[in-house]
Amino acid sequence: MRVEYSKVSSHIIEQLREIAGADNVSASQDDLERYSRDEMPVSEPHPPELIVKPVDTTAVAQILNLANENHIPVTPRGAGTGVVGGCIPIYGGIVLSLERMNQILEIDEDNFVAVVEPGVILADLYQAAEEHGLYYPLYPGESTASLGGNIATNAGGMRAVKYGVTRHFVLGLEAVLPTGEVVNTGGKFVKSSTGYDLTQLIVGSEGTLAVVTKIILRLISPPKRSEVLLIPFARLEDAIRSVPQILKQRVLPVGLEFMERDIVHIAEKYVDKEIPFHDCEAFLLIIVEGDSEEEILGASSVIADVCKNNGAIETYVPSSERAKRDLMETRGRFYPAAKSTGPLDAADIVVPRSMIPKFVGQVKEISQQHQIPMVAYGHAGDGNVHVHPLSHGIDEEQWRTNVPQVLKNVYQAGAALGGMVSGEHGIGFDKKAYLGTSLDEDIIALMKRVKKAFDPNNILNPGKLFDLE
Amino acid sequence: MRVEYSKVSSHIIEQLREIAGADNVSASQDDLERYSRDEMPVSEPHPPELIVKPVDTTAVAQILNLANENHIPVTPRGAGTGVVGGCIPIYGGIVLSLERMNQILEIDEDNFVAVVEPGVILADLYQAAEEHGLYYPLYPGESTASLGGNIATNAGGMRAVKYGVTRHFVLGLEAVLPTGEVVNTGGKFVKSSTGYDLTQLIVGSEGTLAVVTKIILRLISPPKRSEVLLIPFARLEDAIRSVPQILKQRVLPVGLEFMERDIVHIAEKYVDKEIPFHDCEAFLLIIVEGDSEEEILGASSVIADVCKNNGAIETYVPSSERAKRDLMETRGRFYPAAKSTGPLDAADIVVPRSMIPKFVGQVKEISQQHQIPMVAYGHAGDGNVHVHPLSHGIDEEQWRTNVPQVLKNVYQAGAALGGMVSGEHGIGFDKKAYLGTSLDEDIIALMKRVKKAFDPNNILNPGKLFDLE
Repeated sequence: MRVEYSKVSSHIIEQLREIAGADNVSASQDDLERYSRDEMPVSEPHPPELIVKPVDTTAVAQILNLANENHIPVTPRGAGTGVVGGCIPIYGGIVLSLERMNQILEIDEDNFVAVVEPGVILADLYQAAEEHGLYYPLYPGESTASLGGNIATNAGGMRAVKYGVTRHFVLGLEAVLPTGEVVNTGGKFVKSSTGYDLTQLIVGSEGTLAVVTKIILRLISPPKRSEVLLIPFARLEDAIRSVPQILKQRVLPVGLEFMERDIVHIAEKYVDKEIPFHDCEAFLLIIVEGDSEEEILGASSVIADVCKNNGAIETYVPSSERAKRDLMETRGRFYPAAKSTGPLDAADIVVPRSMIPKFVGQVKEISQQHQIPMVAYGHAGDGNVHVHPLSHGIDEEQWRTNVPQVLKNVYQAGAALGGMVSGEHGIGFDKKAYLGTSLDEDIIALMKRVKKAFDPNNILNPGKLFDLE
Repeated sequence: MRVEYSKVSSHIIEQLREIAGADNVSASQDDLERYSRDEMPVSEPHPPELIVKPVDTTAVAQILNLANENHIPVTPRGAGTGVVGGCIPIYGGIVLSLERMNQILEIDEDNFVAVVEPGVILADLYQAAEEHGLYYPLYPGESTASLGGNIATNAGGMRAVKYGVTRHFVLGLEAVLPTGEVVNTGGKFVKSSTGYDLTQLIVGSEGTLAVVTKIILRLISPPKRSEVLLIPFARLEDAIRSVPQILKQRVLPVGLEFMERDIVHIAEKYVDKEIPFHDCEAFLLIIVEGDSEEEILGASSVIADVCKNNGAIETYVPSSERAKRDLMETRGRFYPAAKSTGPLDAADIVVPRSMIPKFVGQVKEISQQHQIPMVAYGHAGDGNVHVHPLSHGIDEEQWRTNVPQVLKNVYQAGAALGGMVSGEHGIGFDKKAYLGTSLDEDIIALMKRVKKAFDPNNILNPGKLFDLE
């Protein structure tokens, strides 16, 4: 399938203004600039020809129908907080921004379900659920991210050890196919064996299969209590090897993060806060939830024992809500903090959690070998490790030349341990070149056939995940 | 796509004997008869031309490759315990039985994972997990069912209220495409955003997209305690309306079943056991798990209070392990018991759980209207209701003529309440005619395009879910 796209003619613009309302169509310089990028660490801007911000499903269907008939590329976009260029319109055409479809349509207390439009941001969902005594437990970190974007990337985050990831909370979707049909999948129930599960196929498809216009999300009862433990270690290996040991103890933390001193110092400077024991070489940050004080204390003491046996210096429990918040905020800002240090790249490999010690060791070796400093941190409890090749103190030209090979080595090391390229960020166009390190040709070819079954003219988010021939 | 299949020639048989080993190829009368049916309530036998029972993935790949090149239909089969004809070879050809690929390859205690072949039966998985101090919590009811079959139908069962269904425990697959390629999806981790989630697409696809040859399953820590409550009511409505009220109390039972007196009496006779309070009109059967006696007592008392307020006669807790087992066994045998009463049909609609009272009321109305007795029972806590039109005391000819319209009305009632045709049994070929009651034309057309992306010659389990044109 060759990519031969048409430009957005003035006639098409006129039709789009009629479909979406003139106020919802823009080609202003400001907008063209703003919609030319996301939070991807290294990218040239790719402006669209036009931005359309529809307010309902009918408009989305008409826009896609028009674009499909005229072979115009359409790139859907949520809040633009992605980090792999998933919403960057690399072939120009139309950016279809869902930001104005931002209504929480229903919080259904009987079925523990939220029905939302894709432009709703996480912070608003958290609040609405809480107002109804319910809880959306996922914490992908960026609370200005949209639910539509969370679904596109199958966002994960810090609470996946206990709760899983976005796909585990998506019960059903309304979505518009690239050819303009509106389809409904799933419903307000967990059980269904009624045809192929297209809900789960669309989740994580990075906006390449359909534009999601309505989302049915599962909610749960909020936990009664939660606690955060910060456990400093003198040696990174000691911290890392504690992780599988803790999880074997039959306590199930909500989140289990590891971090190195370097990234802690970078983040402290960025948020202008200090975390306790900040000169130790490595840390575990563990979130525990429970229904009672005893439950929390029981789990915490098991965790503290394991860590102590592995050389932990202390098990620190923040004494106030404020100290807890400061700690979580510092952790939450690792990515922008790292980005503030200069050119940066980012990998978010997932490996079986028992392989974390070995994998982090190999990352350190690759770093040594290529003389590029790499900082690793992340979701040790679910095997998802963030690795940043940093550029400070290195010739930028040389850094840019070497980073692709460094990343390739990191991805290959992850794949050899049974892992995959991305645990939660997605592939977008930034990681396309590496997809082959964890998926073989036959399965990529199959994915391309699935793409064609949804999008025969390849108009929807082209050039993401892989290139169609 | 017209269906034009070749017969299995003697030359092909020779090749199959070479591929799979002569002992693993059969066309004996016994086998042809045995593989012509499953547990579907009403079906003529459809014998295959040949049964092949490969012992490894290489053989599966070669068989599919050969069948694809020669346009021979292949129907994969696990333990044959399905109830919608999913493994019945309605176009003849080859039955590909996975029964000899029945090894538990690994119980990985570090990652809480089991790796199994598709022919492993549930009972063996339960035991192997337990021997390693781990737990596979799903309880689809039939412990002689194979894991491959569980994946094909996305089996559910009694514990879905807390744990979800089969798809929530499948982390990855090795599968052979109808064109013979072996693909691997997922891995020993929960988080992944690396291309389309083909694991979840294959789960629940009823053997129409690929033949699963290896399964990576998530295991968990076993609960410390569990209890079963039997709560009799004088009126069905009182039992049913207690269900959403219990779930709103923020206690999360593992399972929450309802049943009527009629099916209880049928099952008592079938298993030759008596359950307490068996002359009451309706019952809730509730499974509660917890880490402590207090936790169980707390949840039980909340449940008992809600039910008492709705007119429950008693909250009965079996006093011995044996009484508990008898109760669960009686519940577990509802389907064969109902089947023993004469010709039977079966529906397993899922609706949002808050709609259960309304839905069951409508089933009763449809039953009255058509003068066909219908018994309803099932997984009230997750919205999955089993409905059996019974035939005893009715002219069989007339029963057979009327049942399709009765079922259609039941499915339409479920769909109007936001439900779907099947919660856990699947569509097979038995329910094909009803698929359109809950899925519209556009989405069925999309599913057919996905099918073609996997199976261009429509050789794999043809005539299931839908007919390709």
